[in-house]
Amino acid sequence: MSNKEPIFDVAQLAHVEIYSPKVDETLWFFKDLLSLSETERDGDSVYLRAYEDFYHHSLKVTYRETPGLGHVSWRASSPQALERRVAALEASGLGKGWIDGDKGHGRAYQFTTPDGHPQEILWDVDYYEAPEALKTPLMNRPQKRPTHGVPVRRLDHVNLMCSNVTPNKTFFMEELGFRLREHIVLDGGMEAGAWLSVSPLVHEVAVMGDRTGNKGRLHHIAYWYGYPQHLSDIADILTEQGIQIEAGPGKHGVSQAMFMYVFEPGGNRVELFGDAGYLIFDPDWKPITWTQETLDKGIIWFGSPLPGEYFLYGTPDVSDVAETLVEEEAVPA
Amino acid sequence: MSNKEPIFDVAQLAHVEIYSPKVDETLWFFKDLLSLSETERDGDSVYLRAYEDFYHHSLKVTYRETPGLGHVSWRASSPQALERRVAALEASGLGKGWIDGDKGHGRAYQFTTPDGHPQEILWDVDYYEAPEALKTPLMNRPQKRPTHGVPVRRLDHVNLMCSNVTPNKTFFMEELGFRLREHIVLDGGMEAGAWLSVSPLVHEVAVMGDRTGNKGRLHHIAYWYGYPQHLSDIADILTEQGIQIEAGPGKHGVSQAMFMYVFEPGGNRVELFGDAGYLIFDPDWKPITWTQETLDKGIIWFGSPLPGEYFLYGTPDVSDVAETLVEEEAVPA
Amino acid sequence: MSNKEPIFDVAQLAHVEIYSPKVDETLWFFKDLLSLSETERDGDSVYLRAYEDFYHHSLKVTYRETPGLGHVSWRASSPQALERRVAALEASGLGKGWIDGDKGHGRAYQFTTPDGHPQEILWDVDYYEAPEALKTPLMNRPQKRPTHGVPVRRLDHVNLMCSNVTPNKTFFMEELGFRLREHIVLDGGMEAGAWLSVSPLVHEVAVMGDRTGNKGRLHHIAYWYGYPQHLSDIADILTEQGIQIEAGPGKHGVSQAMFMYVFEPGGNRVELFGDAGYLIFDPDWKPITWTQETLDKGIIWFGSPLPGEYFLYGTPDVSDVAETLVEEEAVPA
Amino acid sequence: MSNKEPIFDVAQLAHVEIYSPKVDETLWFFKDLLSLSETERDGDSVYLRAYEDFYHHSLKVTYRETPGLGHVSWRASSPQALERRVAALEASGLGKGWIDGDKGHGRAYQFTTPDGHPQEILWDVDYYEAPEALKTPLMNRPQKRPTHGVPVRRLDHVNLMCSNVTPNKTFFMEELGFRLREHIVLDGGMEAGAWLSVSPLVHEVAVMGDRTGNKGRLHHIAYWYGYPQHLSDIADILTEQGIQIEAGPGKHGVSQAMFMYVFEPGGNRVELFGDAGYLIFDPDWKPITWTQETLDKGIIWFGSPLPGEYFLYGTPDVSDVAETLVEEEAVPA
Repeated sequence: MSNKEPIFDVAQLAHVEIYSPKVDETLWFFKDLLSLSETERDGDSVYLRAYEDFYHHSLKVTYRETPGLGHVSWRASSPQALERRVAALEASGLGKGWIDGDKGHGRAYQFTTPDGHPQEILWDVDYYEAPEALKTPLMNRPQKRPTHGVPVRRLDHVNLMCSNVTPNKTFFMEELGFRLREHIVLDGGMEAGAWLSVSPLVHEVAVMGDRTGNKGRLHHIAYWYGYPQHLSDIADILTEQGIQIEAGPGKHGVSQAMFMYVFEPGGNRVELFGDAGYLIFDPDWKPITWTQETLDKGIIWFGSPLPGEYFLYGTPDVSDVAETLVEEEAVPA
Repeated sequence: MSNKEPIFDVAQLAHVEIYSPKVDETLWFFKDLLSLSETERDGDSVYLRAYEDFYHHSLKVTYRETPGLGHVSWRASSPQALERRVAALEASGLGKGWIDGDKGHGRAYQFTTPDGHPQEILWDVDYYEAPEALKTPLMNRPQKRPTHGVPVRRLDHVNLMCSNVTPNKTFFMEELGFRLREHIVLDGGMEAGAWLSVSPLVHEVAVMGDRTGNKGRLHHIAYWYGYPQHLSDIADILTEQGIQIEAGPGKHGVSQAMFMYVFEPGGNRVELFGDAGYLIFDPDWKPITWTQETLDKGIIWFGSPLPGEYFLYGTPDVSDVAETLVEEEAVPA
Repeated sequence: MSNKEPIFDVAQLAHVEIYSPKVDETLWFFKDLLSLSETERDGDSVYLRAYEDFYHHSLKVTYRETPGLGHVSWRASSPQALERRVAALEASGLGKGWIDGDKGHGRAYQFTTPDGHPQEILWDVDYYEAPEALKTPLMNRPQKRPTHGVPVRRLDHVNLMCSNVTPNKTFFMEELGFRLREHIVLDGGMEAGAWLSVSPLVHEVAVMGDRTGNKGRLHHIAYWYGYPQHLSDIADILTEQGIQIEAGPGKHGVSQAMFMYVFEPGGNRVELFGDAGYLIFDPDWKPITWTQETLDKGIIWFGSPLPGEYFLYGTPDVSDVAETLVEEEAVPA
Repeated sequence: MSNKEPIFDVAQLAHVEIYSPKVDETLWFFKDLLSLSETERDGDSVYLRAYEDFYHHSLKVTYRETPGLGHVSWRASSPQALERRVAALEASGLGKGWIDGDKGHGRAYQFTTPDGHPQEILWDVDYYEAPEALKTPLMNRPQKRPTHGVPVRRLDHVNLMCSNVTPNKTFFMEELGFRLREHIVLDGGMEAGAWLSVSPLVHEVAVMGDRTGNKGRLHHIAYWYGYPQHLSDIADILTEQGIQIEAGPGKHGVSQAMFMYVFEPGGNRVELFGDAGYLIFDPDWKPITWTQETLDKGIIWFGSPLPGEYFLYGTPDVSDVAETLVEEEAVPA
């Protein structure tokens, strides 16, 4: 522990925007199967939230010809914290400036990761207000539990593919106050992945090496179930409904997450997170380092392995390159 | 949201000390059934931890003629944060002064709640180091998972009975930076319970009205399972082993916890927490208020009801008073 | 074991008919929440099945002014077995004669229990054929898993209240070949309940003493989930949707079932069965006898207790009598 | 349905004997991790049972230099049924004659499958009697639930590798009265696997094509958990304890089983069965036929794939042959 005190200025992952070339099918996936509800539409965009998300939306789906990441939105811990982070971001050279806001929130400061993933940070948010028919006597739940689909409970995290892990990890730590929780350090010292958080969750953001060498791609967004049975339930339904399950259910060593990866019809990878994982309350946490020697158990503790494409496919897709790489490289690492 | 920024100076519940008149039986309960392991013994005290607790101990069991709370220990977020909280506690008049430390941690500042529950706050802790045979390739787990009992994963929270909820709640908020997450406000405005946290957990501490009017008693400590099946597993075993289950498994509305309450052989109530509950990431959280009208669903959302004694029994026991009250008063509230 | 060989002439519980004064609400409960699908309507009756029921229907809901049991339908093991059972039933004096059939099945032989519960036994059944959109690549599943509600998987058993348990138990054993699996024998020798089956299930039928002294009433029908999590899921939804949960989730000692009892809007009690229980393969099974001394753990092994009304309420309701009895008698037994 | 009535003469899988070259390690696996208890030792053999097995043993482990199947033991439905089956077996030419009995059971008639797997059928069995300390108030459970390991509940089924599936399937059906529940029929009509039962379980025995062309080998024995969480629990522990998990947790389409396959230290494959599967009560069941076109979903409905060795490795091991085949043949089928 250095003498420097930790930064507590970022509170949470507020929402994510993804691009989809097939908005209707993407909505069917999120609304009919994962039970998100639609809050609003605006132009090419649709705003969605899970039934235990408290704000106007946690997901914005916007039409584009190719899938990928629109932006990631972080909520600051206070108005003052927002100002401090904006000052730091401006000084970093990666700030882009303020926007007036969007559906569901007020002004926000835009910036990018070193790799170019669009981000924003904000304070003012609109809270979801359930209509009368959806109000529930469970007063800490913003609306009744949906009676269709296998409802995810809340947005959990985002995983960003990076041409180079280390500077992106450092950026989240230094400019935004994220703590490094776990990382993979290969022989020779190259970081292949890093998991970072501002809360006891192991990660609200992961940065993962893009073996194709591309920049700024999305690996996946993750919604949270909390209960392992719900992973089996949705796996059963997804299989019958023709949705492609890439891997899982299984358990990662890293983050101890019960995972399942699927592709929404627009082409983006979505993780469904099936338990509580473990939580980090230690304020002086020493990051867990997985090495080439220990990595196998870190990737899969038990259950379904990850296919080679897991390490190559992101959105937007660059599969010509990927196909070449699959043959050349051993996977993992 | 006022202009005042939140305080982030307390990081977590570090450990709890309980008194037991039957230390051997208490150890059998925690070690053989809940799978805690013993780290050290010292005089009348035994130090224990769950297999995913990272420090030297999360539970200290000390012999006394009557069961009850020894003390509650909080870990600060940084050495500087510790100094700030000590200054505030001294100013509050409830500070008692520094001790040099105990097995498993360095110097700590002692204080009490307004109701008199012994507390301490500290920074220096000893980390648990697994012996070779218990080292695990799951590198974010401090030791192998026990192969006996139904292992709890970590200490979760403590519930303190108070002669008057409000000043104790306010103390945790103002002197230590806890946020109020949920509370019960009866007709007439009396607070009957409050759930407070320094993290996304709904509570690391609850303060609950003591209907017997006593001060400084312990309602329960809680260990965490995370998975609902493990509540059924331990319920099955506890029933066969003759341990009294007071209530549960069931689901509280407050905190959305799958709960079960049992009495360890020394007489203290222990909650076994069977899922992830919900987590609060909103930095501007409006506390949930349960009223006389909505309270029933708050106490039990579904499953096993709570018996009247739940609201009267604490440690040390004052059951003559309690027996009288059971007849006089409607329960709950 | 006597020299007499066991009778294997009854294969399974085929379907149950219940009466409802509120058919639309009853259908909402079974279709929207438990995910049964409607196969056909005919006059005052609607035919339903769970998604893993293989025949035309497992539930027939018929309009009547008061709730209660329409009839219970058993499927024989072979055409020859049907003839043998009909001969035995005719000889018993409780046979009523053949009907030509009903929607979903061919001719059936009607009879009653000694207490007067209408029953039938049959061989010819119509199999459910999924429409194209509901066909599934899971070839042992008759249709796709529903994507709404918390789908029950199949009809499990029926529980009949009897003015006198013993002759009804004996009737099922002697005329139909049921094996006695467990029973409650009170001090003095009176049987208070008996669980009987023709398969490894602990029961397809239970007969339970009616403390009101009435004859021929229905205690409950049970649908099967298999997974404990689904009991929590449906409990959550039923609570929010305003359906009354009488008791559970909890675990019976008798049959080791994870249970939950709810009232469908028409007034009939429905059990939702939340795990696999235990199965009996021993061909020489010695019935388990629960006595006054051991009964408490038999009724509730852990979790939610049963309210007094559980032992008095059946359909049709006779609540004037019941109310009187609740005050006079200790419950249970 | 032909006019022939079904045969109900075999009631259940009574026990299995396996050979182990490392008896101590095999016992550690079954006793310390799966929580079987040892009933008796005799010469080179140790007798074990799961805590919900009612008889003297469900597993006999006998020392041999190579792992494999000792024998499979079936219990008849009655003494008369035993005589009928012995007559049929003698007529089949595969009967070997009576033995006086073994620890835990009386006289038994020995025979083999057409492929040569040793079998026996018997009526007289010894029931397990719990010592005082293990008696439980849960009167339908033969002993207290173990408080170590992740206890399996009962023996479930056995899977036999056969040089030719069809005659072995036919043998179980015609001589013993098994019903065919599901099978795999490849292009050209060759059966690659068949699942058969005498109860509502989908199988007490499976016969599976041995692609190495060998005869009489054991593919696996299966113990039953019933609850999916316990598969995760034991997977976690097996991984930490260094036991090799071959595949799973995952869900087969065939039989709808949540499966996991592991190798006990003696080299035999053991399946751990993690839920209730589905049960077949239909007395006129039409066998499910999986074809080359539909087989993929039959083998894996979701989750972990099966490695190629799954289709080649059995005990005793013949791995020189297997290694050759892996390269030549596409897997599966």
